[in-house]
Amino acid sequence: MEHHNHTNVVNRLKSVSGHINGIITMLEEDRYCIDIIKQIQATQAALARVSEIILENHLDTCLTTAIRGDDPNERERVLAEVMEVFRTENRTK
Amino acid sequence: MEHHNHTNVVNRLKSVSGHINGIITMLEEDRYCIDIIKQIQATQAALARVSEIILENHLDTCLTTAIRGDDPNERERVLAEVMEVFRTENRTK
Amino acid sequence: MEHHNHTNVVNRLKSVSGHINGIITMLEEDRYCIDIIKQIQATQAALARVSEIILENHLDTCLTTAIRGDDPNERERVLAEVMEVFRTENRTK
Amino acid sequence: MEHHNHTNVVNRLKSVSGHINGIITMLEEDRYCIDIIKQIQATQAALARVSEIILENHLDTCLTTAIRGDDPNERERVLAEVMEVFRTENRTK
Repeated sequence: MEHHNHTNVVNRLKSVSGHINGIITMLEEDRYCIDIIKQIQATQAALARVSEIILENHLDTCLTTAIRGDDPNERERVLAEVMEVFRTENRTK
Repeated sequence: MEHHNHTNVVNRLKSVSGHINGIITMLEEDRYCIDIIKQIQATQAALARVSEIILENHLDTCLTTAIRGDDPNERERVLAEVMEVFRTENRTK
Repeated sequence: MEHHNHTNVVNRLKSVSGHINGIITMLEEDRYCIDIIKQIQATQAALARVSEIILENHLDTCLTTAIRGDDPNERERVLAEVMEVFRTENRTK
Repeated sequence: MEHHNHTNVVNRLKSVSGHINGIITMLEEDRYCIDIIKQIQATQAALARVSEIILENHLDTCLTTAIRGDDPNERERVLAEVMEVFRTENRTK
């Protein structure tokens, strides 16, 4: 991954990790369930954004290289992988 | 779209359309809310499956052609479109 | 369901049904895949909104009545149903 | 929250936190994008499960108490909160 994206993604994941530790503290302090659920939903949205950045980078680099390459199996493989990611996203949170 | 996929997708959409008319009847018969919601969720799942089939076809045809082509703007355009579809899926149901 | 909500929901479902017929026409006219997928995503969002309206109505009426009632099995049943709806929403589109 | 659920939820969140640190390591080791995205999707599914457990507990306790109570504003408030959680889930990942 390009350096700029790499740092961006690592920082976002570190922030999610800190967020989750904060949610554990909320649980230990017996905070209101709904407030805790909202924080969990916020971390899910943050993770969704991270997936988007990584996928965008992947399409621009690995996938483009494979599709422009001469190996039809490799082309099929990268497209099947993207479909699998889409399918999981499409069917689950 | 390839003939086989085309027919498959049209049939699935016709089935969803019939399903939705059935849900309207359930409402008119004052059926139990939860049963109605479950039927709506079933149509949403059926539509998600249709999107997957169309996207898979798109990746194998238009996207592959554009990426193997010589126009970098066109390559960028098709990848941005796929990201937009993914982003919408990722953020909404 | 209260009359106002009932009409609102039926009208929204009729509109989704019309929208899906429009998508079938787009397919028959061989329109661009990505444009078709975007229309499908729009119908999914419209259906999600319908589920919300029905669920909101359900919580205010049947669920409230059951929980304020004297039958603990009935209370458990309505809560389990709401969790099942949430779980499906949570895991699928 | 009941002791058993509390421990269960805290353990699940600690496991997600560890999982995310593992993903950061994958990024630092320049692992394949698609493998990283799959791991992120796994953490999103784990967080979705945590929300479900907390919501289920909330419905059985706070919501049931409020709805069986005498304050109509309080009843309205807890139902509106549950709808807000559902709506967020319904519209985003």
